[in-house]
Amino acid sequence: MSEPVRPAVIGVVTASDRASAGVYEDISGPAIEAYFGRVLTTPFRIERRVIPDGFDSVRDTIIDLVDVAGCDLVLTTGGTGPSARDLTPEATLAAAPREFPGFGEKMRAASLAQTPTAILSRQLAAQRGKCLVVNLPGSPRSIDLCLDSIMAAVPYCLELMGAARIDTDPRYIQAFRPKK
Amino acid sequence: MSEPVRPAVIGVVTASDRASAGVYEDISGPAIEAYFGRVLTTPFRIERRVIPDGFDSVRDTIIDLVDVAGCDLVLTTGGTGPSARDLTPEATLAAAPREFPGFGEKMRAASLAQTPTAILSRQLAAQRGKCLVVNLPGSPRSIDLCLDSIMAAVPYCLELMGAARIDTDPRYIQAFRPKK
Amino acid sequence: MSEPVRPAVIGVVTASDRASAGVYEDISGPAIEAYFGRVLTTPFRIERRVIPDGFDSVRDTIIDLVDVAGCDLVLTTGGTGPSARDLTPEATLAAAPREFPGFGEKMRAASLAQTPTAILSRQLAAQRGKCLVVNLPGSPRSIDLCLDSIMAAVPYCLELMGAARIDTDPRYIQAFRPKK
Repeated sequence: MSEPVRPAVIGVVTASDRASAGVYEDISGPAIEAYFGRVLTTPFRIERRVIPDGFDSVRDTIIDLVDVAGCDLVLTTGGTGPSARDLTPEATLAAAPREFPGFGEKMRAASLAQTPTAILSRQLAAQRGKCLVVNLPGSPRSIDLCLDSIMAAVPYCLELMGAARIDTDPRYIQAFRPKK
Repeated sequence: MSEPVRPAVIGVVTASDRASAGVYEDISGPAIEAYFGRVLTTPFRIERRVIPDGFDSVRDTIIDLVDVAGCDLVLTTGGTGPSARDLTPEATLAAAPREFPGFGEKMRAASLAQTPTAILSRQLAAQRGKCLVVNLPGSPRSIDLCLDSIMAAVPYCLELMGAARIDTDPRYIQAFRPKK
Repeated sequence: MSEPVRPAVIGVVTASDRASAGVYEDISGPAIEAYFGRVLTTPFRIERRVIPDGFDSVRDTIIDLVDVAGCDLVLTTGGTGPSARDLTPEATLAAAPREFPGFGEKMRAASLAQTPTAILSRQLAAQRGKCLVVNLPGSPRSIDLCLDSIMAAVPYCLELMGAARIDTDPRYIQAFRPKK
């Protein structure tokens, strides 16, 4: 623990035809950025992307964020529902083929306490190299709810993957690491 | 809401070697039909099919119900367990490759409150075109339990898919649609 | 019930580079064996394997246990997390392609009551021929917790698959079989 901590790189991808065309302002991406500013105690840098919905755009953006920008963690927002243009989960698995089903189960269970339509979300988490990729819903309130439901497990997950070390403020999130 | 409502077309598929051979009477299909008669307030028409278990029979029946009969919603009953002839989930994904994992999770969680063998059910929900396909268990009591657990999300799901509008009687099911 | 009961064959696979190299003693495999000694009232025989982590080793061991050793039930321990060498779930699906999602959901939900990192486990259950294969975590305490959470459904599952009959001691596990 005496070695200097490398700042984590956190990718934030807003998949939205309208936000990427400038028709309305992206509020979901900034909500994710604000969440990590509040919760993390270790240094990090954000890589923001606002892109159109769709399979290729989401897949290629995730690959670029992991392989070129060196992200340790990527959060997407948007594109997980039943509409024809909602292709974020498919694109995520194409870029990050190793799925962690527990994340989707947990986030849906948390959202279900608020709204019965949570079962429509196909959001998932998966691994590309040493990076964890997590699909979040579109609305800022649901984003916080989903992140709260999984965040205690994320620092240890990144450690096991060989990604950068992150720590959380225990006033918000009591992260769990098993004793060796 | 002033435009005339197109009646929804609801497919009901009983996958059962014995029912399709006339060895016993299908009671699951009529139970599903009765459920929608009780719960929906919007006009609908039922397309019933009683077919043998098996991959090809279930896949081809779903495809026909969606592409030819124009179904907005298809419910199957039977064939989701560990027996060799239980091939309904595989066949459903072959016809409707976009899965919604939240439906299977929610239906199993609801069934689990009644019986520990609910974890043996591989039932799922998936999308073909503008149609939602949902696997239900075989017993009429479990059918009602599973439908009750997901039905609040089905009207909004069909809306997002571009299927026919359906509404539910709030005495039975308080359907949820987010405010625009 | 008057016919003689064939002893069930239960495979126990410890996937661990260190245990298989003799660097430390395998305690997870014996914990699984002790669990069945405590819980089952019907005769059974254990087939133990201690193998390195990895896709090929786990896949080939499962295939051998089912096709050659004639196992009715195979339990694996280890290799379900996010580390690069954790490949047990992938290998299990390669050997046993018919998954039962309810098992993974239930075991993660049970583990989640103890530790938030339960969502990192990709453990699953799947079927090869007439055999059920279940992935368990590495730590003995978590093994018991996971087995307790699914065991009530296992005897009926094996019956539906055509495997050997097993019965449980109701002081530990109240197994469920529906009335015919």
